[in-house]
Amino acid sequence: MSGQAERLERYAELAVRVGANVRPGQQVGVFAQLAHAPLVREIARVAYRQSATYVDYVYEDAHVKRALIELGPEESLSWTPPWLVTRVRDLNAKRSAVISIAGDPEPELFSDLDGERVGRTRMIELSRALSRQFNEMLANWTIVAYPNEGWARSAFGEPDVERLWEAVAFATRLDEPDPVAAWRGHLEGLAERARVLQEHEFDAIRFHGPGTDLTVGLLPISIWRAARFTTSWGVEHVPNMPTEEVFTTPDSRRTEGFVRSTRPLAVGGSLVRDLELRFEGGKAVEVNASAGADIIRGQLETDEWARYLGEIALVDGSSRVGQTGITFMNTLFDENATCHIAYGDGITFSAEGAGELSEEERRKIGVNSSAVHTDFMIGGPEVDVDGLRGGTETPIIRDDAWQLK
Amino acid sequence: MSGQAERLERYAELAVRVGANVRPGQQVGVFAQLAHAPLVREIARVAYRQSATYVDYVYEDAHVKRALIELGPEESLSWTPPWLVTRVRDLNAKRSAVISIAGDPEPELFSDLDGERVGRTRMIELSRALSRQFNEMLANWTIVAYPNEGWARSAFGEPDVERLWEAVAFATRLDEPDPVAAWRGHLEGLAERARVLQEHEFDAIRFHGPGTDLTVGLLPISIWRAARFTTSWGVEHVPNMPTEEVFTTPDSRRTEGFVRSTRPLAVGGSLVRDLELRFEGGKAVEVNASAGADIIRGQLETDEWARYLGEIALVDGSSRVGQTGITFMNTLFDENATCHIAYGDGITFSAEGAGELSEEERRKIGVNSSAVHTDFMIGGPEVDVDGLRGGTETPIIRDDAWQLK
Repeated sequence: MSGQAERLERYAELAVRVGANVRPGQQVGVFAQLAHAPLVREIARVAYRQSATYVDYVYEDAHVKRALIELGPEESLSWTPPWLVTRVRDLNAKRSAVISIAGDPEPELFSDLDGERVGRTRMIELSRALSRQFNEMLANWTIVAYPNEGWARSAFGEPDVERLWEAVAFATRLDEPDPVAAWRGHLEGLAERARVLQEHEFDAIRFHGPGTDLTVGLLPISIWRAARFTTSWGVEHVPNMPTEEVFTTPDSRRTEGFVRSTRPLAVGGSLVRDLELRFEGGKAVEVNASAGADIIRGQLETDEWARYLGEIALVDGSSRVGQTGITFMNTLFDENATCHIAYGDGITFSAEGAGELSEEERRKIGVNSSAVHTDFMIGGPEVDVDGLRGGTETPIIRDDAWQLK
Repeated sequence: MSGQAERLERYAELAVRVGANVRPGQQVGVFAQLAHAPLVREIARVAYRQSATYVDYVYEDAHVKRALIELGPEESLSWTPPWLVTRVRDLNAKRSAVISIAGDPEPELFSDLDGERVGRTRMIELSRALSRQFNEMLANWTIVAYPNEGWARSAFGEPDVERLWEAVAFATRLDEPDPVAAWRGHLEGLAERARVLQEHEFDAIRFHGPGTDLTVGLLPISIWRAARFTTSWGVEHVPNMPTEEVFTTPDSRRTEGFVRSTRPLAVGGSLVRDLELRFEGGKAVEVNASAGADIIRGQLETDEWARYLGEIALVDGSSRVGQTGITFMNTLFDENATCHIAYGDGITFSAEGAGELSEEERRKIGVNSSAVHTDFMIGGPEVDVDGLRGGTETPIIRDDAWQLK
């Protein structure tokens, strides 16, 4: 076996055994793009060796989506073929494992199309089904990325796949002699951060730096969480590889101020640069960007809750992703390099008791619910992060270093 | 636009406008393999320009199927993920157009695996759903092939895609100044052959040549048909491109004798060579082949009706496919080069009144019903074809030339 084939097999093993933590007798659902086929195939082999009963996959072709955006009827932009929802429901009903593959081979494929149409293009029913899978913990799932030429070109300006593989291997601890043990230690460190944040019972988090002065309210029921999730029936899994964040769902009614994104954002087949948002009473009321503002505006039109935050996540400079110094042009990586927030859907299981409420009831108490959930990066060495409580400010991150004990 | 891009666009137009005959406001379902992506994308563009509402696609990855055959549990070999059936039913319920793409990039991918497991690997529920779509004429559909390196290598021993494209363009009349008009004339010629065959009211067809002396009984209700189909709601379409055959569903109880295949058969990721079958009382009771016999035996085990014939089709040397002189190692092409028969599922709409009967009732009167339908080639210059009726034999094909007036 070549070194590359062996690395791919070890990576698939990490995704199957640590990420999704596929159990014998489980079905495995894979979501991928065409360029991810080599990893999908290796995941299938590893999963069957782990006694999976069936590996079911769907390949997305962004060029067919491009044809839809360019030439299809308006009402089809947000439509979901019903079988895609059936598939998610069947996977949930069978308590399946799910592996999604990231690493867009053509992250600017839609950049010459009508940005608002691009922003409105979203399978809403599929998003809802996946949000339910996520929030009700109906599958042991993970997202891993597959290095490919197009992604490497987007990150480095040249198709240096080997360089990208090395960065991915470092960020995912695949370079460790015993990656499984390295992950165990790493996950415990993140869980400790979440525990300490929880003890402080902050009422809000403030980000302050160039172009940014943003206060995000927290709920009394907000739960800080980190990388290890557990399904409703008790299977632990690691939803993102890499993962460096501690996160919670904020009070969607209490975001105030302005924020400047600190990294470009690859979203909807386009790159958004220098994104700036202004919030009033929780709502994003102003959107600017040097590129791609119309994509964001299109997304914010998806439903009336898209303009409110659903997630706040803290990451400092100890992140392995951040240490690579690379802007990956890929949210799975870039959001794990630095602090980020997401507009749109909230994280139900990060708000105590929210899982028992209806969507409507959740929104009323400040736990957002939307068909959109877009993360963007707002942290870095120049951005101070503080926890607010009863008039005092407690430093959480300074000069990209974690302060909170 | 390059010559190759223009050819691909014209080919997609032929598939969309003549093959499936997509109507404005229709949804289009595409079935493809990963290697077919360039044609899928062009079909999507053409279909949206024809005012299709949505182009829905599924890509099959034969390498994931290989992992299943090699490493998966026995009971999963014939399982269908339910969403695949939902998808076919939804397409039917919406009166959609369907385009399937052939041209296997790796026709021998499974040749080193356990042949009987390969033969038993078949999504039975999906096969049933597609059989229903086909027999009840629930979609305007077509199959076209996409020339690719692997297929070219399999046909020519070298990846000469350009040579394959030229052969495909000739066989599908894409080389004509007005392919749409050329198809119209061709389809009328085939319809005339079917009409003449019907008038003769043959009771059986006999094939006689080296290694072959096979008599296939016909039903009084057998209807000879050719290339132009009509959906249950009246949309004409051409199910195969190319198509050169006139065919019917035989009396599945009255096949007698032995037959030697005249071309290799690419089936189930393997090549079957020199296939020989012996029939008694309709049933295939003996299977031999110089390669791949176990694949055929595995298929014949799918259900108890797989061993009976479901189709008989006549093609002579005027076939454009045959005129290329190429063995394409692809059933869509090779079955349109020469006479063929299929074991397994019968063609309900080729037996008058059979559409109103249950599966059980159809089988009782000799119209077969099975989860398998595999065509294989049995004609050529050395094989005489005669129509039998009341003790007289009427020549239909001699020296590869059509005789019947």
